[in-house]
Amino acid sequence: MKKHNFSAGPCILPNEVLEEASKAIINFNNDNLSLIEISHRSTPFVQVMHEAKQLVKELLAVPDNYSILFLQGGASLEFLMVPYNLLSTDGKCAYINTGTWSKKAITEAKNLGETKVIADSSDKNYSYIPENIAITEDFDYVHLTSNNTIFGTQFKSFPETDSTLVCDMSSDIFSRKIDVSKFGLIYAGAQKNMGPAGTTLVIVKNNILGKTGRDIPSMLDYKTHIDKNSMFNTPPVFPIYVSMLTLRWLKDKGGVEYIEKINEDKSKILYEEIDRNTLFYGIVKKENRSNMNVTFNLHDNNLSKEFDILCNENGINGLKGHRSVGGYRASLYNALPIKSVEFLIELMKKFEEKNND
Amino acid sequence: MKKHNFSAGPCILPNEVLEEASKAIINFNNDNLSLIEISHRSTPFVQVMHEAKQLVKELLAVPDNYSILFLQGGASLEFLMVPYNLLSTDGKCAYINTGTWSKKAITEAKNLGETKVIADSSDKNYSYIPENIAITEDFDYVHLTSNNTIFGTQFKSFPETDSTLVCDMSSDIFSRKIDVSKFGLIYAGAQKNMGPAGTTLVIVKNNILGKTGRDIPSMLDYKTHIDKNSMFNTPPVFPIYVSMLTLRWLKDKGGVEYIEKINEDKSKILYEEIDRNTLFYGIVKKENRSNMNVTFNLHDNNLSKEFDILCNENGINGLKGHRSVGGYRASLYNALPIKSVEFLIELMKKFEEKNND
Repeated sequence: MKKHNFSAGPCILPNEVLEEASKAIINFNNDNLSLIEISHRSTPFVQVMHEAKQLVKELLAVPDNYSILFLQGGASLEFLMVPYNLLSTDGKCAYINTGTWSKKAITEAKNLGETKVIADSSDKNYSYIPENIAITEDFDYVHLTSNNTIFGTQFKSFPETDSTLVCDMSSDIFSRKIDVSKFGLIYAGAQKNMGPAGTTLVIVKNNILGKTGRDIPSMLDYKTHIDKNSMFNTPPVFPIYVSMLTLRWLKDKGGVEYIEKINEDKSKILYEEIDRNTLFYGIVKKENRSNMNVTFNLHDNNLSKEFDILCNENGINGLKGHRSVGGYRASLYNALPIKSVEFLIELMKKFEEKNND
Repeated sequence: MKKHNFSAGPCILPNEVLEEASKAIINFNNDNLSLIEISHRSTPFVQVMHEAKQLVKELLAVPDNYSILFLQGGASLEFLMVPYNLLSTDGKCAYINTGTWSKKAITEAKNLGETKVIADSSDKNYSYIPENIAITEDFDYVHLTSNNTIFGTQFKSFPETDSTLVCDMSSDIFSRKIDVSKFGLIYAGAQKNMGPAGTTLVIVKNNILGKTGRDIPSMLDYKTHIDKNSMFNTPPVFPIYVSMLTLRWLKDKGGVEYIEKINEDKSKILYEEIDRNTLFYGIVKKENRSNMNVTFNLHDNNLSKEFDILCNENGINGLKGHRSVGGYRASLYNALPIKSVEFLIELMKKFEEKNND
């Protein structure tokens, strides 16, 4: 029996996608060759790349003046590429620090030029999203992390600014509607809502590039990858293919609008249980609670071993909180069915009954 | 029926590996979860990473004072990381230019510091390997490409030098015995003899790092990845897993020594046929012919359409030469069975008979 998979990433993918991917490893496109042993320049794979891009464009309503790229290196390499491509040699950039990944992004930017942290929630271990962020200066760009996987916070709206808005959407892209035109650049590691680990989606407004006065190494230059249609060098064939399948699945389901509603339902019932259940409490400020990563804790940590065993015995996977926060984290990505959330809630109820006897 | 797959990369992988990988996409490790939906920090994947490294160490007899890394970005990102990590701010490095990939590596190094091209075979469209390369100066490192996938040339021995030798072995690693201790750094994109596209193997001597006086961005710093055991950020799970399976397959077969013999046999019979067959000729200087990528051409280009159709009808895949060379290229990587080479040879003979009628 398949487990209930609450892993924070790499995370659950739709069963239909896994089955199709498994078949493609043996025989792709009925060509009697495996997907992973054909040239990336062969027609079947060029079509995969094309369809993957088209699906991103369609699902997020990406305007025509943006490029869509599938790169490697995860968000961590984007932390470097963003300032390389957008921070002028004499300019400055701004970052909102809402967690571990924001902090890492800030470190890379600081090495390249003037970097201001204009809002910060580290004072309460990143358990909230800073409010009323005033962007009064003129920055080359303002960077934020839309969803903080580790802490379970999420921006529900985005700061208004005339500066270019750059967003790491690794853990909530394709989970809710966004207005791409508000952003200059969006990036996301695939391994949450898009596909397996090994590729990074970048959506970039073309006219913000080429203005820094920097020499950019080829592989770090978005223009290199735009010019070569994400095939400057051999792309990560399998991760891109499975991302394409996952986006196709999302489109078939009804797209981002449809999944956003489901995601809201899933997180709503789980947060309600956390708030109701006398044994548990939520870690994050209520208005900033993430619909993707639901973090919670036991009032009495002595019960944790028993709860862990209960989860384990019932086929619950990946519920352990990140080592920097502790407690529990239920990640409710697109592919997680609501019945898994309901199952977890029932388990929390049973656990409460047993411990309140 | 499975095709005879002569693709230059991504390329043929062993059937056993494809079957195992296909199963792991559905249910990995009998955990009722897919390989691609579990945390990279879960025990089963940590074990994959560990075994992959151990297999590299064992198959290539890597000395203990070297680190073994699985990164992303292919050789193209290594072109940048190598000078970042090894070229002192006031030092100089040397490159041997034997083809397209060497040239790209040179471009990236030049942007970072003094870069000398000490040997070059571009005068004859890279159809040979420069001989008696004298390395008289003191360089931070000397870089070469062991096998030139596009042109079909291969270093049969390596230059002697007191400088650190750095080698791009993307297209012949694990195909023949090498003495790792002669090199300071070896790198290779996985997608030839090691696995699918999406990960890069780096083998680096620990004591050559940290000497440049440069600030190195985290993701470009080998020390980052050594310290975090190739898990600084989410690694490309599937490409590393399939690489592990492929290396396991190689070990089971008898290791590098065994496969080197087979590879010699495969290329020998094909080159013999090219030299014998009145319709074809080899492109590369005989002493420098690659055992991995066999490039050849038709004396009469008017016959090419007919030969292409014949290949196509007989299930031959990936024989077309690279666009910068033209003609044909039969890539004979580890997983290609000798019967595929024999089949191609028979086809060439039939083609000759028919055209000499």
